[in-house]
Amino acid sequence: GYLFAQTAPAGDTTSLLITNKPPLLQNVHMNVLLRSSLEIPDGDKPSSLRLNEARLEFMGTIVPDLDFRIRYRLNRSQAQRDLDNAPGSLDHASVNYKFGSQKKWSINVGKQAAYVGNWEFETNPTYEYQYSDFVNYQTNLFLMGMRLGYQANKNHGFFLQLHNTYNNSFTTTYNNAGYAPDGLKSAKHPMGVYASWLGKLFDQKLHTFWSYDISQYASGKTNHAVALGNKLVLKKLKGYLDLQWASMPVDYVNIASPSVNKYQQGLNPAYTPGFARDINYKGAVLRLDYEFVPGWFITTKGIYETSSQTKGNSAIGKNFRQNIGVLAGFEYKPIASQNMKLFGYYYNNQVKYRNAIADANEPQRSSLFAIGVLYLVNAF
Amino acid sequence: GYLFAQTAPAGDTTSLLITNKPPLLQNVHMNVLLRSSLEIPDGDKPSSLRLNEARLEFMGTIVPDLDFRIRYRLNRSQAQRDLDNAPGSLDHASVNYKFGSQKKWSINVGKQAAYVGNWEFETNPTYEYQYSDFVNYQTNLFLMGMRLGYQANKNHGFFLQLHNTYNNSFTTTYNNAGYAPDGLKSAKHPMGVYASWLGKLFDQKLHTFWSYDISQYASGKTNHAVALGNKLVLKKLKGYLDLQWASMPVDYVNIASPSVNKYQQGLNPAYTPGFARDINYKGAVLRLDYEFVPGWFITTKGIYETSSQTKGNSAIGKNFRQNIGVLAGFEYKPIASQNMKLFGYYYNNQVKYRNAIADANEPQRSSLFAIGVLYLVNAF
Amino acid sequence: GYLFAQTAPAGDTTSLLITNKPPLLQNVHMNVLLRSSLEIPDGDKPSSLRLNEARLEFMGTIVPDLDFRIRYRLNRSQAQRDLDNAPGSLDHASVNYKFGSQKKWSINVGKQAAYVGNWEFETNPTYEYQYSDFVNYQTNLFLMGMRLGYQANKNHGFFLQLHNTYNNSFTTTYNNAGYAPDGLKSAKHPMGVYASWLGKLFDQKLHTFWSYDISQYASGKTNHAVALGNKLVLKKLKGYLDLQWASMPVDYVNIASPSVNKYQQGLNPAYTPGFARDINYKGAVLRLDYEFVPGWFITTKGIYETSSQTKGNSAIGKNFRQNIGVLAGFEYKPIASQNMKLFGYYYNNQVKYRNAIADANEPQRSSLFAIGVLYLVNAF
Repeated sequence: GYLFAQTAPAGDTTSLLITNKPPLLQNVHMNVLLRSSLEIPDGDKPSSLRLNEARLEFMGTIVPDLDFRIRYRLNRSQAQRDLDNAPGSLDHASVNYKFGSQKKWSINVGKQAAYVGNWEFETNPTYEYQYSDFVNYQTNLFLMGMRLGYQANKNHGFFLQLHNTYNNSFTTTYNNAGYAPDGLKSAKHPMGVYASWLGKLFDQKLHTFWSYDISQYASGKTNHAVALGNKLVLKKLKGYLDLQWASMPVDYVNIASPSVNKYQQGLNPAYTPGFARDINYKGAVLRLDYEFVPGWFITTKGIYETSSQTKGNSAIGKNFRQNIGVLAGFEYKPIASQNMKLFGYYYNNQVKYRNAIADANEPQRSSLFAIGVLYLVNAF
Repeated sequence: GYLFAQTAPAGDTTSLLITNKPPLLQNVHMNVLLRSSLEIPDGDKPSSLRLNEARLEFMGTIVPDLDFRIRYRLNRSQAQRDLDNAPGSLDHASVNYKFGSQKKWSINVGKQAAYVGNWEFETNPTYEYQYSDFVNYQTNLFLMGMRLGYQANKNHGFFLQLHNTYNNSFTTTYNNAGYAPDGLKSAKHPMGVYASWLGKLFDQKLHTFWSYDISQYASGKTNHAVALGNKLVLKKLKGYLDLQWASMPVDYVNIASPSVNKYQQGLNPAYTPGFARDINYKGAVLRLDYEFVPGWFITTKGIYETSSQTKGNSAIGKNFRQNIGVLAGFEYKPIASQNMKLFGYYYNNQVKYRNAIADANEPQRSSLFAIGVLYLVNAF
Repeated sequence: GYLFAQTAPAGDTTSLLITNKPPLLQNVHMNVLLRSSLEIPDGDKPSSLRLNEARLEFMGTIVPDLDFRIRYRLNRSQAQRDLDNAPGSLDHASVNYKFGSQKKWSINVGKQAAYVGNWEFETNPTYEYQYSDFVNYQTNLFLMGMRLGYQANKNHGFFLQLHNTYNNSFTTTYNNAGYAPDGLKSAKHPMGVYASWLGKLFDQKLHTFWSYDISQYASGKTNHAVALGNKLVLKKLKGYLDLQWASMPVDYVNIASPSVNKYQQGLNPAYTPGFARDINYKGAVLRLDYEFVPGWFITTKGIYETSSQTKGNSAIGKNFRQNIGVLAGFEYKPIASQNMKLFGYYYNNQVKYRNAIADANEPQRSSLFAIGVLYLVNAF
């Protein structure tokens, strides 16, 4: 519902935690998202106690059919970006208005979550320990948008979301990366559209969230992306399998570009680094959580993502960069009514290179042991 | 009232929106200021969805005669300025204490709005789409102050506000502009005083807000400014006419200086740019809103502002820089009890130069079409 | 109690201010910390109205035995530090969980106050006008921690707090200071432990808060610190005497290092400045507040702190840097139920040098007169 997810699928917005409320506050909520842990990495890297999450959320429905939502991080600068005038700290600052017969239609305007078919991102960040590159870098997750929704029935909703492709201006994106524009210029409308389906199937045991996105940023360069999120909700077993594919004529997300630049500079020391062209990304993320004793959980996650450049028989070729992550841990939830957990987990991450790229780039491997506490507080 | 304005004229602080409150929250309020729009500028400039406003406000009266108020923007850095130790993100952080017989006297201390006679600024920013240079650059609007008030009767209040002239130190102001101090130094008391009258006339249909300000920043240089705000409140027609005049021995607000520097560098390439001397500003802003059908509004705004340098028969002369703005739009307010509007407007802005300055500075012209949603949420 | 202190000693968490609350909000609180004053320094330094304090706090106990607490400043950047991922603006973001028979045990995880035996820091910052170097620079006060507590009885609690030594990485600490690492490297575990005792003696008239801290930051360099806080709570007289001693193999807090660098550069112009080695700090702070007429207070504070370098018969020697502060003022609290005060005070500060260091460093003296308002608002 609203409380647990980035965005609020219709008909699922009631907090179960607090019933003893004055009428006013039955429809206004404050949530606090907290997670802290002691992280001990391998090798020489220093251990530290880390503030993994600290976000505040205010939301409510003052009159029927009209909602507001604000959520922001307490550990990010509030300085605004230059294209959208919104800061990186702000996840949500939006208004949702339902209309039409039976209120099946809705329009959501403001800073909001990309309506991308991805349960890893859709899960409340309090609960997600380590993310894929898809969530960390590949997708512009919190963006300015106008989202039109149609809730066909209890189980199926369809959405079109007009959005800014990125949050900074074209010039700033190049300046931040330290790259030269090499002949490209900003599109007049650096925007895109998500078309999304949120479904509940098989007695609401399978939740689908599928999306297709088309967007542009540089003039004449069109991005395409497909994301297929599939979530399983059983009594003791919960999990998701997210699949994604994206085609980027210019690699503005800069995941694959550094390794390509290093390879090109090996061939030609005078090569000017830039955003790589014609990169394809693919990925699969699987998470499974099992409650083996009431209040005790085992949590596991696997990440597999690749980058390719195959256009024009490029020497760089298929799957030249691979990102592999494996996480396993235990969780203990001592108070049934509260989303507070003590946890411990181990995470291993590898980045490997193949083909011509492997000659210029060393594989990277890191691992981490963490122990800590998370608490998603529904204060009122 | 308190909810809709920058500051709270006495006797007008009750929210009409929520009546069904527990006793505790009858006197504590949380407001959220939201406005987002799709902005399509003319020419090559990229379109974007913009977060126009995102502010949080907490205020209340815990015991009679003692109020607090906090309001801050979620899309500005919270880094503090070096003279006042307050950030640009913070509009209000103040305490108001009423005293004396019949509680006619009040003292307001902390970060607060300049008590300048200007309804354009006094209007809640949620509702003001485009601002004059007077509000955007000329006036230090949110500043540290100590304001003494005397509410003579229901219709007339008088105020003296001691305030910092600017929020940064003298040295930082020059560094930020990239100018050299050319022989000036900071005043020992870089402060000023607003003397203001807030009146309601003609059966409360005309609201006046008039002010005179005297201030200094550089030692021995005294600024004077007069602002005459006049607001009309009829049943279907609302609007204001703001008039202002200011005399600045040193143009620290830097509206006119760039064009003067360019002119001087045309005469003498070795000229060192700086804040121009002896600049006068004048301006008039007219806004009219008409509800032509219940819930449907037409909104219009006109801005005319000039800069002059006439001292010592300067060749630069009268009205050498003119800023002209015209806005027209429609608004739809679907829910009578909520300050939520869907809107669309067109805005055209021109900056023109005259006299000697025109030879060195090209006129600038820009226009914008916007469509979006605003919502001033009174959460409790 | 919780409301007035950095941290919440057990059994003292009830606000006395508001009784007329709906059940929901009896256990959720919002506080606002405000202090503003007109500060008039001696000499040429400019006067200004300053925002001394502006912090927001949310805390609560949603179910028994589980607390959350968030407190942050509105006038500091929210950009995160690189070791702990928390910003300087964030004082508290923590979860406290009580467990064991009779709930005598507790674990507190997240951003929190150092559990250092020091009443000057433990006092709510709204009430503390000027701080010692111990609070301003010497101690890492708000840090990521895991604190284990055992409340033996109503009057005595014992605590072990695992904490990050500093909030930035080793490299960033050197970069920020502009010093070279001169052969040192980061410890694998740049952490420490506070062992603390909070006691109430003599019919709860004397409150002790004593702590010992052992920590490391550079590999092989161990810091030790002892802090003995003693607070007197009588009917009309309140005050504290804080004593402290610290041994720092490397002066990362950089209080003494600038004067040592200046001295070394006098001996040898080619000397590369860095963090001084083997510095000892000692200090005593005494504050006394006396209510001489109901609602009227006289407040006084004295600070004496020294730096020494005696290892290996160093020429720099004992007490080579002394920091001396004296404050005296009046406070008026017009409303008995509200923590709002009008105040005025005078503060004089001197830094003096002795021994070899005195030849290279001029003494510094500054004074300040301030008048203003403070208000610790318990909004609900």
